[in-house]
Amino acid sequence: MLAHIARRIGHFHGHQISSAILRRMRASLKTINPISLQDFSQPNPSWSPEMRKFYDHYNAQCDTDTETYENKTGPWRKLPSYNRSIKHATGGIYISKLIQAKARLFTRSVNEQGATFEYVAFFNKEEKICICLFQPGHLLEGAPGHVHGGAIATMIDTVTGTLAGYLSGPSVTANLNINYRSPVPLGSVVIIHCALDRIEGRKTFITCKVTSTDESKVYTEATADASIRYVLYYKITVAHSHLISAIQSK
Amino acid sequence: MLAHIARRIGHFHGHQISSAILRRMRASLKTINPISLQDFSQPNPSWSPEMRKFYDHYNAQCDTDTETYENKTGPWRKLPSYNRSIKHATGGIYISKLIQAKARLFTRSVNEQGATFEYVAFFNKEEKICICLFQPGHLLEGAPGHVHGGAIATMIDTVTGTLAGYLSGPSVTANLNINYRSPVPLGSVVIIHCALDRIEGRKTFITCKVTSTDESKVYTEATADASIRYVLYYKITVAHSHLISAIQSK
Repeated sequence: MLAHIARRIGHFHGHQISSAILRRMRASLKTINPISLQDFSQPNPSWSPEMRKFYDHYNAQCDTDTETYENKTGPWRKLPSYNRSIKHATGGIYISKLIQAKARLFTRSVNEQGATFEYVAFFNKEEKICICLFQPGHLLEGAPGHVHGGAIATMIDTVTGTLAGYLSGPSVTANLNINYRSPVPLGSVVIIHCALDRIEGRKTFITCKVTSTDESKVYTEATADASIRYVLYYKITVAHSHLISAIQSK
Repeated sequence: MLAHIARRIGHFHGHQISSAILRRMRASLKTINPISLQDFSQPNPSWSPEMRKFYDHYNAQCDTDTETYENKTGPWRKLPSYNRSIKHATGGIYISKLIQAKARLFTRSVNEQGATFEYVAFFNKEEKICICLFQPGHLLEGAPGHVHGGAIATMIDTVTGTLAGYLSGPSVTANLNINYRSPVPLGSVVIIHCALDRIEGRKTFITCKVTSTDESKVYTEATADASIRYVLYYKITVAHSHLISAIQSK
């Protein structure tokens, strides 16, 4: 099955990947242990009833049931979220092997449930949009009682980058322009709405809005543009996230 | 001495604060326990020799010795950094008392030394600039081996906000516009340079650049504008940080 996935990745997002890159990816596949990968965007006891309600709402409209992996029909796809990249990146990217071994994805680096970034993202391929339910925890404080602007920027970067990745292939954020309209209370639940604005050459332009769950209040508005990068490790990163997703859904 | 500080805050940054606000601030002073406040921007064993070298370089040019509190002469002032606000904010800002009790400043919320944001900021009042030495730890990963764009945005928000606060009084970030030029390797040391662009009414415009320590490489460029907010809790926040600083330096 791994060979099958590697073949699929060979035509990842319509971009032909060279055989040298494919060889490296196949080699790195051997290090994947699907059992050790936990999807951190599944509901947990720290989720408020409101967070759970909106999760159930979107999950019911997904193409695949995220708990039983049964096929359903629906416009949305739930995106899994892990706490690390596969350790394929070597040769000068990391400053030291120690850092490489301990590295964790920023938004999933704190193990305590509910303490930092509780979120789950859904992707709608047809409408080219992504929504993310976000419940900021008590370790994300900026102004007293409110979420740090950097934590909001982190989620905006994450969700816009994810949408750009799914629409255009492996991308990195080139610009983020964020307008903070109103502070987000700690422990509340907000919805991050991202939509494709346009694609120009290598660049994917995304608009983003952070609102209350009833959408009556706009906390933050932003635009992001992400560039497709034909650099090995970015390609592998996104390919890997698809790989892991494929492995888990088997 | 507390009354003396409270009087000084009454004319904080030239803005007259109403007696009702002063009463609330005096009441909240009673909850301050200076002994429990740790300055997290002091050197620790996780700092690389490079980080320590640049810290020593700027610290030697400070107006006050940060370890002995002796007066020296120099253009720089080292800015202390704590892991929490004083718990004065009540009445609907926090969603629950539990969150309020556990809330920690985002950039100082992880206790493990070297794991997340290791940084120290220096302020030069005469030149209206702020520099920050930043050593991103292994829990801030975005693309493999590199710092998450959100973690960089967090530091830019923190340092530009600090500079705006020291120049114009209590402010909140209204806009952040960030151009990511090159990814920052995990575990490296970078310098965040912030400078005043202009002040227009309530708005303070700051420019920001993230570079390698020798300034040969520009990783990120950004602009930020912060607005003075005449809202109680923001006033108290910045006033408190000055208070704590004043108490610690006595």
